[in-house]
Amino acid sequence: MNILRVNLSNKEVKTEELSSDEAILGGRGFIANKLHKEVEPTTDPLYGNNKLIFAGGVFAGTQVTSSGRLSVGAKSPLTGGIKESNAGGTSADRLAELGYRALIIEGISEETSPLVLMLNNQSAKLVPDESLKDLGNYETAKKLKQENPNSGLITVGPAGEHGMLSACISNTDNDDTPSRVNGRGGLGAVMGIKGLKAIVIDDSKETKIQIEREEQYNQLAKDFSRLVANSESTANYRKYGTAALVKVTDGLGALPTKNFSRGSFEGSDNISGQTMYETITERGGEGTPSHSCMKTCVIRCSNVFPDENGKTLVAPLEYETIGLVGSNLGISSLDEIAKINWECNDIGIDTIEFGATMGVAMDEGLCEFGDFESVMDMLHEIRENTLLGRMVASGCNLLGKITGARRVPSVKGQGLPAYDPRAIKGLGVTYATSPMGADHTAGNTVRAPLEHNKKDGQVEASKNLQPFVAALDTLGMCMFLAPSIGKKRHFITDLINAKLGTEYSEKDLLELGRQVLNDERLFNEKAGITSSYDDLPAFFREEENPDSNSKFDIDKQELQKTFEF
Amino acid sequence: MNILRVNLSNKEVKTEELSSDEAILGGRGFIANKLHKEVEPTTDPLYGNNKLIFAGGVFAGTQVTSSGRLSVGAKSPLTGGIKESNAGGTSADRLAELGYRALIIEGISEETSPLVLMLNNQSAKLVPDESLKDLGNYETAKKLKQENPNSGLITVGPAGEHGMLSACISNTDNDDTPSRVNGRGGLGAVMGIKGLKAIVIDDSKETKIQIEREEQYNQLAKDFSRLVANSESTANYRKYGTAALVKVTDGLGALPTKNFSRGSFEGSDNISGQTMYETITERGGEGTPSHSCMKTCVIRCSNVFPDENGKTLVAPLEYETIGLVGSNLGISSLDEIAKINWECNDIGIDTIEFGATMGVAMDEGLCEFGDFESVMDMLHEIRENTLLGRMVASGCNLLGKITGARRVPSVKGQGLPAYDPRAIKGLGVTYATSPMGADHTAGNTVRAPLEHNKKDGQVEASKNLQPFVAALDTLGMCMFLAPSIGKKRHFITDLINAKLGTEYSEKDLLELGRQVLNDERLFNEKAGITSSYDDLPAFFREEENPDSNSKFDIDKQELQKTFEF
Repeated sequence: MNILRVNLSNKEVKTEELSSDEAILGGRGFIANKLHKEVEPTTDPLYGNNKLIFAGGVFAGTQVTSSGRLSVGAKSPLTGGIKESNAGGTSADRLAELGYRALIIEGISEETSPLVLMLNNQSAKLVPDESLKDLGNYETAKKLKQENPNSGLITVGPAGEHGMLSACISNTDNDDTPSRVNGRGGLGAVMGIKGLKAIVIDDSKETKIQIEREEQYNQLAKDFSRLVANSESTANYRKYGTAALVKVTDGLGALPTKNFSRGSFEGSDNISGQTMYETITERGGEGTPSHSCMKTCVIRCSNVFPDENGKTLVAPLEYETIGLVGSNLGISSLDEIAKINWECNDIGIDTIEFGATMGVAMDEGLCEFGDFESVMDMLHEIRENTLLGRMVASGCNLLGKITGARRVPSVKGQGLPAYDPRAIKGLGVTYATSPMGADHTAGNTVRAPLEHNKKDGQVEASKNLQPFVAALDTLGMCMFLAPSIGKKRHFITDLINAKLGTEYSEKDLLELGRQVLNDERLFNEKAGITSSYDDLPAFFREEENPDSNSKFDIDKQELQKTFEF
Repeated sequence: MNILRVNLSNKEVKTEELSSDEAILGGRGFIANKLHKEVEPTTDPLYGNNKLIFAGGVFAGTQVTSSGRLSVGAKSPLTGGIKESNAGGTSADRLAELGYRALIIEGISEETSPLVLMLNNQSAKLVPDESLKDLGNYETAKKLKQENPNSGLITVGPAGEHGMLSACISNTDNDDTPSRVNGRGGLGAVMGIKGLKAIVIDDSKETKIQIEREEQYNQLAKDFSRLVANSESTANYRKYGTAALVKVTDGLGALPTKNFSRGSFEGSDNISGQTMYETITERGGEGTPSHSCMKTCVIRCSNVFPDENGKTLVAPLEYETIGLVGSNLGISSLDEIAKINWECNDIGIDTIEFGATMGVAMDEGLCEFGDFESVMDMLHEIRENTLLGRMVASGCNLLGKITGARRVPSVKGQGLPAYDPRAIKGLGVTYATSPMGADHTAGNTVRAPLEHNKKDGQVEASKNLQPFVAALDTLGMCMFLAPSIGKKRHFITDLINAKLGTEYSEKDLLELGRQVLNDERLFNEKAGITSSYDDLPAFFREEENPDSNSKFDIDKQELQKTFEF
């Protein structure tokens, strides 16, 4: 596989071959490795010599289910530290089909028009396109798709172009909807400020992907698909999507409600996975409760949420968004949440960060909890690039500093996802310690056999999970595979070994994950994000969550044991 | 001497005796020592267990000229690191007359009314006073002075009460004007959020200050006063005040102009010390070009700036304010600068931070350079505690992040004072490395015999100055004494030894300064402000200052040598 280096300053495009040492490195691991080596940790994330990396995993483009996630990474303008954020969609598979494991975007364009990187199996070139300037993601995708019918797309919306700190990056899914989002850490701002509006990946003419032990690999991929397709967790994901979590977390007192002031929401029944399923199936039309974002995925946790006339309101509608712009804002209508979600997707901002920020805004009295119109007005401000809009799009940490709020749910400058860390303390440990800042995908302990609102065993649970998840993120594998895999982790190493002709063990896999975490932590330390920042906001220790009857009480020194591998 | 500990949570007031080891410790050194020992470096500066310390120096309350400065310190809400900011005025002298070297303010008041700490030689008590809520510093001082005619005052304005990150603390001067300002680092927010509006120091009944070798001390104090009173630098300060610097820095290309885009200002003649002197003397009335802020000061660099009818516009008008809200904003009228200054003083925000922030706002097109009315409108927003006002009062670093500005003049979150670091590179080294963030008082090399826009010798110059200045700040001595003292530093140690009956040498003095810097750096490191943050913003390295014909070009590794003592 190859690495494509694209320099936007001089428009130079270079292909490098992945060395055999690096053959297993993709996704998050590739990013940690390269940023660590190539980017000065103290550089300005937006105007310095930052690099933006897109990397799929070792299985991308092949038949292994749910393993075509695309990681994007850079020094984060939101956290100031290293950042990887991965998403589904078709991008990683398509890049692999052109022979690319990764793209490394360097420099800053001096063009006044936004650039589009056009990739096919013949060439890679940069084309300015004035017509895309300030265009929303949906319109951008529609336009580029008309011109390039056989292509997948990676795009930023106006928030990215304007360098807003919570801007995200969108990937088209199987239906060409630009809705699979590398959401966290403001990576869209890095892409936008560099002057890159879109990447068009035309894989209509594929390159053959090399598989060392092809027959064995194909059989393993089939067996693996069957295992995943038939698991109980998959059945649940397929029916209710990630929204199944609403009633789970509501029951645990872990559903962020009104700026994390409590963990159960009086309107939770209206926004549950059950309600979503019923609404979609009743309304019919374009709606579907189950849908796969990646070509090969058998989990199909995604959905299309329609309005009363069966027209798509947004696709997909996911748990994190429901938690952050729903219960966290006191909004109990799936239709309203879907509309907010569509706006965020189109403008290109992270729904988690936006929800966390609006939660602080409401708590500080800038508008009322439950006030849908105020939320839409704020999204309009962001779209129009006003000062107020920019402030809110700078994330909850900055808004908290400006308003003097006491209840600001962020770690290392990044807003908390939809799990209250007082109610699921193991995830609280992950939030506090992950090099990514508050990140629910970095080691979510919600399935660990623990009393989630007690402190026993939580550090250990996070410590065990974080390296494994870092390995999955390196392989481009969806974390929703984990419950299906259970203890059968040999599937992963068997697949790797058949693909690469190697002899990786399960222990090696964890070692790989640990190496990734170490690289990331080292980068952060050099950037000035030391272990001093490994903690939750004080209010989680001071205010009891009345629905989990708990405060966060794992002390700071104990948290540091998470990385004593 | 004593330390008074005041706990605002339970209103407990305790007196502790200063140990003999600590007898020399005052001001900045006292603060570094105590914060280092007593405050958790990662605590939330506003809502955590932060402590606010007021400390004078060893000469406070005695006849030693220009040595009654009051240091205020805490963990800074602006920089996130340790902070000391000192000011003239009468507070330190008056505290010493009551037997206090320092006040340590702990806890947070639960009263809804602001508290006033009433000090006299009999008692120390906390009194709530609803009538002072949201009152400007001038009105607060007037009211408290009427009720307590023989007292000095330490107050915060509405900006402090509302916890704004650039809020300052004001001290009354010899004329009872609340205009001697502990400006930097948002210490006013710490005081305001703790619920303390004012400290009233009634020293009408003095305590005798102990002096070990009294006769010798009095003679030394006289000789020292004569030395200072007759020096050339004092003559200059007395006539033109600090504003004498306008033409000096303009000539060097170091006068911040239009958001540090250049270093000479076309309107500099209109805002020079010469013009100020002439304006004051022509207008007469309440105006005076020379005025002392501390009881014993013979330098008298301060002034009262009158309007055309001889009524006071502001007192004093100082170089940093002229540079930051004058040339840096393209404003070339001393009257306009004086009006902005009065508003800042009354609201209680730092003029340096405000000027640096408005510079970024203007550069980003939020209003025009030179637009006085827009500046006054913004001050109105701050006074009214609007979201826009709060954003601007959060300092230039945050505004820069929100607007996505490339030219943001700040170090460790604190805006740059009125010297362009490309034109005076030694001060650039101090800005980059001081534990305080960008601070012109931490080691200003402008008088060092160097080519200021060249890099040779600058690190050495800052390295030599920083410990000496830290020692002066610990002794409560005004840095404007330094040029008068020149090589006669024995005056300082002689005075210390006569006062305390000790045998300090000049070497010990530097050692004391180094210890202060080490304590401060250690605190910062534990707070996560590591040496990674010891640098200037990239634009000073990338953009040439056209008036000094130079970029900042001292590399980061070289900067670290500043602390190789």
